[in-house]
Amino acid sequence: MLRQASHDLTLATRGRGLYDFTDEVVAWVTKGKFQHGLVTLHLRHTSASLLIQENADPDVRVDLESFFKRLVPDGDPIFVHTCEGEDDMPAHVRTALTAVNLSLPLRNGRLALGTWQGIYLWEHRHSPHTRQVALHYIGE
Amino acid sequence: MLRQASHDLTLATRGRGLYDFTDEVVAWVTKGKFQHGLVTLHLRHTSASLLIQENADPDVRVDLESFFKRLVPDGDPIFVHTCEGEDDMPAHVRTALTAVNLSLPLRNGRLALGTWQGIYLWEHRHSPHTRQVALHYIGE
Amino acid sequence: MLRQASHDLTLATRGRGLYDFTDEVVAWVTKGKFQHGLVTLHLRHTSASLLIQENADPDVRVDLESFFKRLVPDGDPIFVHTCEGEDDMPAHVRTALTAVNLSLPLRNGRLALGTWQGIYLWEHRHSPHTRQVALHYIGE
Repeated sequence: MLRQASHDLTLATRGRGLYDFTDEVVAWVTKGKFQHGLVTLHLRHTSASLLIQENADPDVRVDLESFFKRLVPDGDPIFVHTCEGEDDMPAHVRTALTAVNLSLPLRNGRLALGTWQGIYLWEHRHSPHTRQVALHYIGE
Repeated sequence: MLRQASHDLTLATRGRGLYDFTDEVVAWVTKGKFQHGLVTLHLRHTSASLLIQENADPDVRVDLESFFKRLVPDGDPIFVHTCEGEDDMPAHVRTALTAVNLSLPLRNGRLALGTWQGIYLWEHRHSPHTRQVALHYIGE
Repeated sequence: MLRQASHDLTLATRGRGLYDFTDEVVAWVTKGKFQHGLVTLHLRHTSASLLIQENADPDVRVDLESFFKRLVPDGDPIFVHTCEGEDDMPAHVRTALTAVNLSLPLRNGRLALGTWQGIYLWEHRHSPHTRQVALHYIGE
């Protein structure tokens, strides 16, 4: 019998960086006793991203940050939208280069993530923010 | 009671730039009286993208365009696929760097978009094009 | 009557490059006699991507590779995560810049792909790998 469920996750960031929230998604799936279906995540912001990345070596997150910092420099004189700070327009660009949606199959109560995959919120602003992720489930 | 619906949106562009079509998606949702479910959008092209971005300050779109123009220059001599014009291969790269799929939860008849989020078609070619977005809905 | 189905596709790569596996997805859809619904693909890896791109001129794939090779150079001294080889961290970055999820509407048994769209696995590592794509279907 198919059913649906919705939930909002609220995540507090401490400034720019990658925050693993796989456990929060798994906790919601477990609590709802979802078994087989599709989990969708949508981030309701335009200066942060959702990312599935390696959860083993923390240096991967360091390097992702270094690369994006060089690719989309804060305070780049190319930008005219500067009223919200030097990191605001770079945050929008970083969001455009990544994603705000994720879709994950669920099987036997487990997300179809690979062994090394974690679900991350990527905060692109330097100051702490409160971010909301809309979750949706459809399945058995 | 779960049900499905499908629709094709046809969007006319006037050349490179971001086109907000949130209203067209909302109109389809409203007409179908969809309440709780999942809306999926798929763009049937490889030289344009779907993007969720800030809909407040139009300078954000100007800056996104400036950044991508510099990152993926038209007429870049690195490209060998040039038969369709100087902006064709850059359009494919820009599409690869962004997305052609979006998934949006629907609750109480409203898309789970953030306050500042709009749904955009990003035309990457300079000449006007007709673009098709396949919409899918499953839910109540 | 709505139903669900799941499947794992195993794809063998011969090193860095784009591999068209549209036919494998279509074969699964056909075998299951799926008609109207939503197909979701999730790649269970962090150093390869899923991409929808042009399937006509093979030069497009050559140019995509050239561009990403220049954008994210192997052996870039900016990276500290180098223990798995010069192409490992670039592979993670390329994955972050593209996607590991795709969502495709299905109508009358056909994926809502555009005329020139193919579904690709983009292997970012130089050595051959075995990659798994989790498929999910919900629909009629």
